[in-house]
Amino acid sequence: MTVKSAVPCLIIASLLGALLLAAWGRPAAEKLNEADRTAIVAVLTTQQNDWNKGDIRGFMAGYWNSSELTFAGSRGFTRGWQPVMERYTKSYADKAAMGTLDFKELEIRSLGPDAALVLGKWHLQRQAGDVGGIFTLVLQRFPEGWRIVHDHTTQSPPETK
Amino acid sequence: MTVKSAVPCLIIASLLGALLLAAWGRPAAEKLNEADRTAIVAVLTTQQNDWNKGDIRGFMAGYWNSSELTFAGSRGFTRGWQPVMERYTKSYADKAAMGTLDFKELEIRSLGPDAALVLGKWHLQRQAGDVGGIFTLVLQRFPEGWRIVHDHTTQSPPETK
Repeated sequence: MTVKSAVPCLIIASLLGALLLAAWGRPAAEKLNEADRTAIVAVLTTQQNDWNKGDIRGFMAGYWNSSELTFAGSRGFTRGWQPVMERYTKSYADKAAMGTLDFKELEIRSLGPDAALVLGKWHLQRQAGDVGGIFTLVLQRFPEGWRIVHDHTTQSPPETK
Repeated sequence: MTVKSAVPCLIIASLLGALLLAAWGRPAAEKLNEADRTAIVAVLTTQQNDWNKGDIRGFMAGYWNSSELTFAGSRGFTRGWQPVMERYTKSYADKAAMGTLDFKELEIRSLGPDAALVLGKWHLQRQAGDVGGIFTLVLQRFPEGWRIVHDHTTQSPPETK
């Protein structure tokens, strides 16, 4: 290979090298791109809609279907997709108990190429009395799309009058 | 460039391309390497030690020093390093109120090259009565090291006798 003929090769190698560095050297607080943000909002909107149809199984489709899924609530940690679903079906026995769910004030932050942090508020409008609180969700990208891999949900104490 | 002289170029380009794909195509539930795990545990151990010396400022060094730091507690979200510190100094006015902090059952999960999820339990041993609960921490890698960028802490309801 002559010096002259090596030039295109060096250009290609340099470009690939630069891309590689860009891929590895991502800043810690990188912005989430619009397509990912839209996909994540869609996961939560689908959950909300399924919940409001009384469809807990549909709601559960937003969660990673794995024994490693974790849910942190007032009674500690629940591990695994099936136990998390059972926790919901036990706490919300029917459509009246489920009420009307509303996710509000979503804040979506990138944690790298395949992970995101979502903070927000939840509200359940129910005949038996409204409840609500805040949540922390961690989502990861899977071949099938973004899924919640960890959920920490807190119910606000009843407001004092 | 002749066909023959292009061969080394193609090899270099292919190798860089493969590395690039490896960098982008990381599996979602990748294992955290041992050095990162050790560094993250060290952040939490330092926090615990500083807390137990009554040093809230030292404890706060484990958090990302940014207005974007978030803390989710029983009273909703607190935003920014300074407000999070003020929340702690208000809730724990002196060493007696701070008690002896113990982090237990840490579970550390990778969220990609520069982010990690830590779940665990906390316990405060105090003369005025013990308290404890669970937490979700999200850490990111910064030039200065791993820092907590989001903390969701729940206090367990008092146990019924």
